[in-house]
Amino acid sequence: MQRPPGIITLTTDFGESDPYVAIMKGIILSINPDARIVDITHQLPAGSIQEGGLIIKESYKYFPSGTVHVGVVDPGVGGKRRPITMLADNHFFVGPDNGLFSPMIEVQGHTGIIHLKEKRYWMNKISSTFHGRDIFAPVAAHLSLGVNPFLMGEKIDNPTTLTYPLPSKNNSDLVGEVIRVDHFGNLITNITREYLSTFLKSKSLIIKIASLVLKKISNTYNDVPEGQPLALIGSSNLLEISINMGSATKYLGREYGVGTKVIVRRHSANIEL
Amino acid sequence: MQRPPGIITLTTDFGESDPYVAIMKGIILSINPDARIVDITHQLPAGSIQEGGLIIKESYKYFPSGTVHVGVVDPGVGGKRRPITMLADNHFFVGPDNGLFSPMIEVQGHTGIIHLKEKRYWMNKISSTFHGRDIFAPVAAHLSLGVNPFLMGEKIDNPTTLTYPLPSKNNSDLVGEVIRVDHFGNLITNITREYLSTFLKSKSLIIKIASLVLKKISNTYNDVPEGQPLALIGSSNLLEISINMGSATKYLGREYGVGTKVIVRRHSANIEL
Amino acid sequence: MQRPPGIITLTTDFGESDPYVAIMKGIILSINPDARIVDITHQLPAGSIQEGGLIIKESYKYFPSGTVHVGVVDPGVGGKRRPITMLADNHFFVGPDNGLFSPMIEVQGHTGIIHLKEKRYWMNKISSTFHGRDIFAPVAAHLSLGVNPFLMGEKIDNPTTLTYPLPSKNNSDLVGEVIRVDHFGNLITNITREYLSTFLKSKSLIIKIASLVLKKISNTYNDVPEGQPLALIGSSNLLEISINMGSATKYLGREYGVGTKVIVRRHSANIEL
Repeated sequence: MQRPPGIITLTTDFGESDPYVAIMKGIILSINPDARIVDITHQLPAGSIQEGGLIIKESYKYFPSGTVHVGVVDPGVGGKRRPITMLADNHFFVGPDNGLFSPMIEVQGHTGIIHLKEKRYWMNKISSTFHGRDIFAPVAAHLSLGVNPFLMGEKIDNPTTLTYPLPSKNNSDLVGEVIRVDHFGNLITNITREYLSTFLKSKSLIIKIASLVLKKISNTYNDVPEGQPLALIGSSNLLEISINMGSATKYLGREYGVGTKVIVRRHSANIEL
Repeated sequence: MQRPPGIITLTTDFGESDPYVAIMKGIILSINPDARIVDITHQLPAGSIQEGGLIIKESYKYFPSGTVHVGVVDPGVGGKRRPITMLADNHFFVGPDNGLFSPMIEVQGHTGIIHLKEKRYWMNKISSTFHGRDIFAPVAAHLSLGVNPFLMGEKIDNPTTLTYPLPSKNNSDLVGEVIRVDHFGNLITNITREYLSTFLKSKSLIIKIASLVLKKISNTYNDVPEGQPLALIGSSNLLEISINMGSATKYLGREYGVGTKVIVRRHSANIEL
Repeated sequence: MQRPPGIITLTTDFGESDPYVAIMKGIILSINPDARIVDITHQLPAGSIQEGGLIIKESYKYFPSGTVHVGVVDPGVGGKRRPITMLADNHFFVGPDNGLFSPMIEVQGHTGIIHLKEKRYWMNKISSTFHGRDIFAPVAAHLSLGVNPFLMGEKIDNPTTLTYPLPSKNNSDLVGEVIRVDHFGNLITNITREYLSTFLKSKSLIIKIASLVLKKISNTYNDVPEGQPLALIGSSNLLEISINMGSATKYLGREYGVGTKVIVRRHSANIEL
């Protein structure tokens, strides 16, 4: 493998008011002064392993091959969960083995996953509360310099994985759910463009979420008047419910967040929920 | 033109909890691995085109000539609004043609504005919901490498512009308004130092906003006791209403935000509003 | 001294919705195009000089020697407080002489502190409201290029210092207090691991805060069941009160924040407060 590009991304639930993220950056720059560090987000709700995995999955592929992606959503820090690194889709991932990298393990399978053990790639002292600082940041910096991850520990083939809800088919209904609500209040579902296009036989459909019924999939937010709801395939190739110049989460109510069912029915028969 | 410095700034209404900003950075670094990316802010209220323009106007000039400033406040994404780049005051600007760059167009006039059309400078697939990722980030990266903007599309001379409120004179009164409230609760008006100094003939004046009457322009926050209100010419050369060690927006009430009238009267006659 | 690594950190109370932080970065990159800039935090509560000092103290040592740390919590800007730079523990610090750097002055003593006076290292125009932009950013950029700080002004030996509360001993009681509440709701006290280990003669102890009594110091968050409180030595080597998978500040109530007393008693005798 050629020398990696020296880019390291960080995704955590640390927030931005404490020095924790900056401490990781200081360690990285101490080991690789030429590293370029990009924050994905530090605003994951505390302990949101599944949401962290979705965010990393959505963003990693826009970075150059060989980028090192550090994820620290680590409520089990200091306990028995293993620190790992893995190579998937030509990107490196570093963090706790608690399911955070499930979407990447799904892509790659159970190969190329290393249980981090070699302490020479770590800080000298290892706390029981901040492995982002003591293990993951220095390991990421060494990976960004081209250190072979297989030198850093032992291969494992039993990583912890979390399952994400998948849409299900039920006669003429496709039943999915909201998996993420973004900053604009868009309700992003687990129904992909591909899944939807194999399900639908014609353009005639009904989409139902909460009390809202939509009769088509729009191309842009502006296909409906300002303040009106619509469904479209968003920038991540997922069906989303939005409001033109507004927030779907405000429109429907905050109780319709992650986990809310979304039904797509072929033809325009009535839906009874 | 000599090679640009490779600096790219980002101003958006994306917030920092989603991966959208980082995705733009990943694309930029994939095209120009040496780009240095600086966030201006991602906390613009959703769809605040005018406020975005003020923020870009206030900050761009502190960067080196040739810096590329990307602005994405783009509620009309996927509709008919054009993607543009422009060269103004020796800086590049990239984003939607929806008035976001009005303050820079005011500086430069309707020259040097390009309707982006050349798809070889874009991502391969163009979504209808995220041109920040698909068009503006890659175009900015190419500009930061020195690609001539005139190769990227066609010159236009009819950009969309928004008008900002200007102060007006009414006998001995100068009537301006609050155009931005900053993080400290300072109320920043549209009255410039220059405008004020041509209006005033002596140092004798009264400033009135909401129920507050001030009788001078202070030099520093500390010119008045802690917790007391004052008017001064702020760091952007604009008249602002502040509280020493406090927040003017909390002091006056949040209802006196953007759009609130501010009256400056020559001499110390009484003001009746 | 060898050439510094060109790293500059920023710690302010500016928030991230205004262009103020980015303006400082633009100035830094205009002077030192190769500077690498790291945000520590910009979310300090407005005017929180003491909290700013704690954050800088906790983070600076993870950066390479020669890093320049800019701190701007500066409610007295434009008044009589002096702009300073200091060299402590092989790091540079730049900001107002208002006590912000007290923890570093404690490390270093009153040596190596420079009252900034040489205007050729500043911006051309100096406002009375934004020295972060006009003085501290350009000075930091010049320091990151290797300019000798002793050329930038005059040595002083009377810096402003703030005292932080220290724990006290009272027979078998050690009385400390909460000095910081982090993003996770951990209550971080001023009792260091070293202080605690010289105080304790055995492992038998009681810790009391608010109505909560804890009977041991845990090693990790997971030593107690989910949702249960614990005391441990956190990543900064300070005693902290936490909740496994939860927030101590929510558990105890927000009224038990900075300043709340924490009592450690040797042996397991009852504590009466």
